[in-house]
Amino acid sequence: MNDEHYMQMALDLAVQGRGCTSPNPLVGAVVVKNGIVVGRGFHQFAGGAHAEVHAIDAAGDAARGATLYVNLEPCNHTGRTPPCTHKIVAAGLQRVVMAMRDPNPQVAGGGAGFLEAQGVETTCGVCEEQALGLNEVFIKYIRTGRPFVTAKCAATLDGRMATRTGDSKWVTGEESRAFVHELRHAVDAIMVGVGTIAADDPLLTTRLQGRPSKDPIRVILDTRLQIAPTARVLNHCSEAETILVVGQETSASVRTRLPLKGVRVIEGEIRDGLLDLDRLMNQLGRMGVTSILIEGGGRTLGSAFRAGIVDKICFFYAPLLSGGDDGVPICSGAGAETMQDCIRLDRIHTRRFGDDVMIEGYVIRN
Amino acid sequence: MNDEHYMQMALDLAVQGRGCTSPNPLVGAVVVKNGIVVGRGFHQFAGGAHAEVHAIDAAGDAARGATLYVNLEPCNHTGRTPPCTHKIVAAGLQRVVMAMRDPNPQVAGGGAGFLEAQGVETTCGVCEEQALGLNEVFIKYIRTGRPFVTAKCAATLDGRMATRTGDSKWVTGEESRAFVHELRHAVDAIMVGVGTIAADDPLLTTRLQGRPSKDPIRVILDTRLQIAPTARVLNHCSEAETILVVGQETSASVRTRLPLKGVRVIEGEIRDGLLDLDRLMNQLGRMGVTSILIEGGGRTLGSAFRAGIVDKICFFYAPLLSGGDDGVPICSGAGAETMQDCIRLDRIHTRRFGDDVMIEGYVIRN
Repeated sequence: MNDEHYMQMALDLAVQGRGCTSPNPLVGAVVVKNGIVVGRGFHQFAGGAHAEVHAIDAAGDAARGATLYVNLEPCNHTGRTPPCTHKIVAAGLQRVVMAMRDPNPQVAGGGAGFLEAQGVETTCGVCEEQALGLNEVFIKYIRTGRPFVTAKCAATLDGRMATRTGDSKWVTGEESRAFVHELRHAVDAIMVGVGTIAADDPLLTTRLQGRPSKDPIRVILDTRLQIAPTARVLNHCSEAETILVVGQETSASVRTRLPLKGVRVIEGEIRDGLLDLDRLMNQLGRMGVTSILIEGGGRTLGSAFRAGIVDKICFFYAPLLSGGDDGVPICSGAGAETMQDCIRLDRIHTRRFGDDVMIEGYVIRN
Repeated sequence: MNDEHYMQMALDLAVQGRGCTSPNPLVGAVVVKNGIVVGRGFHQFAGGAHAEVHAIDAAGDAARGATLYVNLEPCNHTGRTPPCTHKIVAAGLQRVVMAMRDPNPQVAGGGAGFLEAQGVETTCGVCEEQALGLNEVFIKYIRTGRPFVTAKCAATLDGRMATRTGDSKWVTGEESRAFVHELRHAVDAIMVGVGTIAADDPLLTTRLQGRPSKDPIRVILDTRLQIAPTARVLNHCSEAETILVVGQETSASVRTRLPLKGVRVIEGEIRDGLLDLDRLMNQLGRMGVTSILIEGGGRTLGSAFRAGIVDKICFFYAPLLSGGDDGVPICSGAGAETMQDCIRLDRIHTRRFGDDVMIEGYVIRN
């Protein structure tokens, strides 16, 4: 078996932490000695032990002279836990294979450098592309302090998220909707416009089949405080809080009008009469939000694309045609003037959920 | 090797006739004796020899006692050529394996029945689904007398075929556009609205790379005769004719105003101020048009879906986002009132052309 084989095992382990490690990365580790896997581990939750510690502890004495596979460069600094590099040296590992360097430019290479100085052989870049994809959220947040933003929509093949009467139940099928709950579970926050709350009165919670799920923070864009106090998103129990983003003038009246339980109100800056989503990303980043799933509606999606805050799209297309232009479009507002001006995407992938087609891609930054 | 293997060879041969056999089906044939292919053939053009004749002639004396694989039940009647069943019996074939019965209910089973009566063993239904797909055009036309209609569009991921300024060059990439020429080559006619002529002034001809192509008939929907006499589609050389479909009142003035060369004017029936596309399909079917590719624009696509004439869609999505709702939508006009009322599709398939995604599917008839 080669390095790629064991790194794939580490990556598969890392995925098991999805939804629980924020603001930390997803990390898996495997200890291999004489071709036999003697220890495995993954980072399970923020504040808990790192993947390397789990794997080395599982290996016990067998770690001496063995090779450690880990999808991220081991840390060389003391955070909530001691440095993993020290643990690796103390356990007597002979070689460390990592998929990628630490994305934080201030510490990148430090872990590998320390290990090399201590006589531990290191290899970097095995399955790197996959590792970069796995931790795309962590990488963006650590480098920019801003959340990684995914825009999601569910539409007919002719691009309508709802009919002219507002009917959207259901555009996509059960399998797609189940996958959306996986997306919700994986992110720190969902963001929607108040129009979506008014139209659909959604719970915006996460329901996974057969395993525990984590509700994301709900961020509701409501410039002029139009949300109904009876909205379900304000009146149900969830450990995750609801954040109402309002314009500066409207915020004063909020606390008297709305139920307070689990609702935080923050003031967003206004630009051209609308919330400045670019600035809002800085605000939410400072609050520790590393990832956001925008679930619509068309006004919010259009504003988000125009503000340039979207990193990735997950568009679900149902095997349906509205046949007209009077339904709810995917994006509202002013679009590109020419095809050249359109937002371009790369790394396009398709995935099937029953007869629904999901197209995912990444926004190319100019 | 089993029956499926040789039938696949016959199907692959049949495809070679694409674009040239209308109104006949695509048929390929293989003669196999003692596990060796001794003859092959395909129907090359309407009026030419049938696939079975080519394959049996190629086999010569080796056909005696051999098995014939053919993707359609051999004909038992004299059309432009004598019945293939007689040729099969005369050549002494022992067994005939066919993928599907003749789709014409008036003659289905006749060929197989004749062969059985003459002591030739027959098997039907091998690779049937693939054979039904290959000849979907022929099957519809022979059963209904109406053309098989494919609706094509090229749009951004948020469903815009052009920007608000009308710019559509280019939505999709070169590979998609090359495939559209394959689609054009395969059909009898392309249909567009006069709005598309005004906006893009297209040639609507077929350009294939490295091999000869066939221009389809161009059908232009122009209820009130608004086409510019200078439109390129009226003023270039092509062996295929241009058919202008006008409303009854406008037709009288046409011949004096337009260049006549290669342009046929037909009167379409008007319903609610628009051309009745359902009736038009009967008219075009009577004129021998077995297949139509609708290439837009949004008004024509919307009307076609509402009229229920579309059998199949080929929608190309480019890795672009307009970000707004002011561009040209895929379908114009009144859409479905509820999701339940939407047009439903099945047999959804995706195909990649560079970073473009094509979604194809079939309209489910209620």
